[in-house]
Amino acid sequence: MTRVVTLAGGVGGAKLADGLQAHLGDALTVVVNTGDDCWRHGLLVMPDHDTVLYNLAGIEQVEWGWGIEGDTRVVMDQLGVYGEETWFTLGDRDLALHIARTARVRAGARITDACLDAQAALGIAARILPMTDDPVATEVRTADGWLEFQEYFVHQRQAPDVLGLRFAGLADATPTPEVREAFETAEGIVIAPSNPLVSVGPVLDVPGMREHVQTARARGVPVAAVSPIIGGRALKGPADRMLAAAGHESSALGVARLYAGLADVFVLDTADADAAPAIAALGLRPVVTDTIMTDDTARARLAAEVLGAVG
Amino acid sequence: MTRVVTLAGGVGGAKLADGLQAHLGDALTVVVNTGDDCWRHGLLVMPDHDTVLYNLAGIEQVEWGWGIEGDTRVVMDQLGVYGEETWFTLGDRDLALHIARTARVRAGARITDACLDAQAALGIAARILPMTDDPVATEVRTADGWLEFQEYFVHQRQAPDVLGLRFAGLADATPTPEVREAFETAEGIVIAPSNPLVSVGPVLDVPGMREHVQTARARGVPVAAVSPIIGGRALKGPADRMLAAAGHESSALGVARLYAGLADVFVLDTADADAAPAIAALGLRPVVTDTIMTDDTARARLAAEVLGAVG
Repeated sequence: MTRVVTLAGGVGGAKLADGLQAHLGDALTVVVNTGDDCWRHGLLVMPDHDTVLYNLAGIEQVEWGWGIEGDTRVVMDQLGVYGEETWFTLGDRDLALHIARTARVRAGARITDACLDAQAALGIAARILPMTDDPVATEVRTADGWLEFQEYFVHQRQAPDVLGLRFAGLADATPTPEVREAFETAEGIVIAPSNPLVSVGPVLDVPGMREHVQTARARGVPVAAVSPIIGGRALKGPADRMLAAAGHESSALGVARLYAGLADVFVLDTADADAAPAIAALGLRPVVTDTIMTDDTARARLAAEVLGAVG
Repeated sequence: MTRVVTLAGGVGGAKLADGLQAHLGDALTVVVNTGDDCWRHGLLVMPDHDTVLYNLAGIEQVEWGWGIEGDTRVVMDQLGVYGEETWFTLGDRDLALHIARTARVRAGARITDACLDAQAALGIAARILPMTDDPVATEVRTADGWLEFQEYFVHQRQAPDVLGLRFAGLADATPTPEVREAFETAEGIVIAPSNPLVSVGPVLDVPGMREHVQTARARGVPVAAVSPIIGGRALKGPADRMLAAAGHESSALGVARLYAGLADVFVLDTADADAAPAIAALGLRPVVTDTIMTDDTARARLAAEVLGAVG
């Protein structure tokens, strides 16, 4: 089985990771963004890690894109009684992960080890590695000033225009030994269809991470990126508006420009087939296919196509 | 309304405090034992405070003697999936208190303030004051060595013989300003029918606490104690066996001996009426009445009797 490393953030990345796991099992390593990790109610919450985790475990809440299917919210309602903010909804089963993981981290465990323990407990085949064990905090500048990412993303429902992005702590972060080792043994690298600016961006911008990708490429490891933009729009989340606000084109081509020089293959939706020549002109081999992952079959089908491109 | 301070630990004390609150409202201050507070899953849990809190809020789980009536245990079951110990059952609504309070304490709040916030949120009339904000840990020596209190009390279901008791941190603890002020303005003091050795004992043994009681007595404030032992038995918990193991008599008289010199009045059950003369001989005025608090009416009735004795 080909050893593949995929870089992922939220829902789209989690779906493709699930499709890849269906083919690769424990030969898959997912390196996830930790920039939108946050502390809620004294607990460490890792939205991207957990979205990938729950998708790989087959228990994700499909409609919302976060949390566990059928979860209850008894604790959250009672937290509200005690004056805690409740706009960042955490279900009861979901909270158990934040409680158990935070307890281990506070007791001195590395975040990576605490996450690997949770993955083992849920019995997933693949490994999900936080991009770093160092604290990184994505912040979004709006007309109201700099906001913590979840304040913008969840509380303000991505409504404000994004005037800037920054990643506190990123310049001092380092990839973990597990991440380094995953790249050193990778036979294929996949940049998942996640937000290029706030999901894949911080992963690649951990100092040393781009070098890990380039070093792998230099020894012949193919790198594919999958467009999160279809027909100019993000299926979920604010990637389209963020790209435009940052001066990029909100299109498959606009995303391809961000990955030119880093990837060999660019997977884009049939809706954007017209962009293939321009993408080829960037030095990326375009692969045009259906990229909408409506169910497990579609996830596995797109994953097979991507694996074919890096195989 | 008479300002009353009551010293309390677990279920019996919580029931009497509830009865007292029915008469006194915000003129009641409950000083609770914190010796069996513990950390579970990275969260500060305060069993005695919370048993009193839930009783005063009218939401206590009557049968178990801890937690909230009708609470669910979704989080606990999922914590078990992550390998956390689950013998110390915490319900979902109950967990919200531990989460919210721990968050505030970790953010720098005093334990007392975090508790007062929770009391205000649940809308109780009385105040419940932790005996100290300093860490105190009750430990029980059994044939297996020294055990953390909840390991003995909950996990081992109080089955082992108690060969010794100690209270880590107690010698360095101090009563809070709120506790001191409560004694300074008290017009009556009530030692609740809680375990004399592991509930009332540590409260009284916080350095300075006995002096607060004695100072109040010296200015004429009456002190009443209520026996937790009826017919030689504790209604709940291991007080009877603990007393015997520590060389005391497991009887109302045995408890009265522990409070002689500290209290003026000793309230005992009609089942133990025969002990009244011997209790009087200790310098305590015996008040014989029905002390079993089967329902809210019985709680209020006993409370009225106790208030009559210190009024």
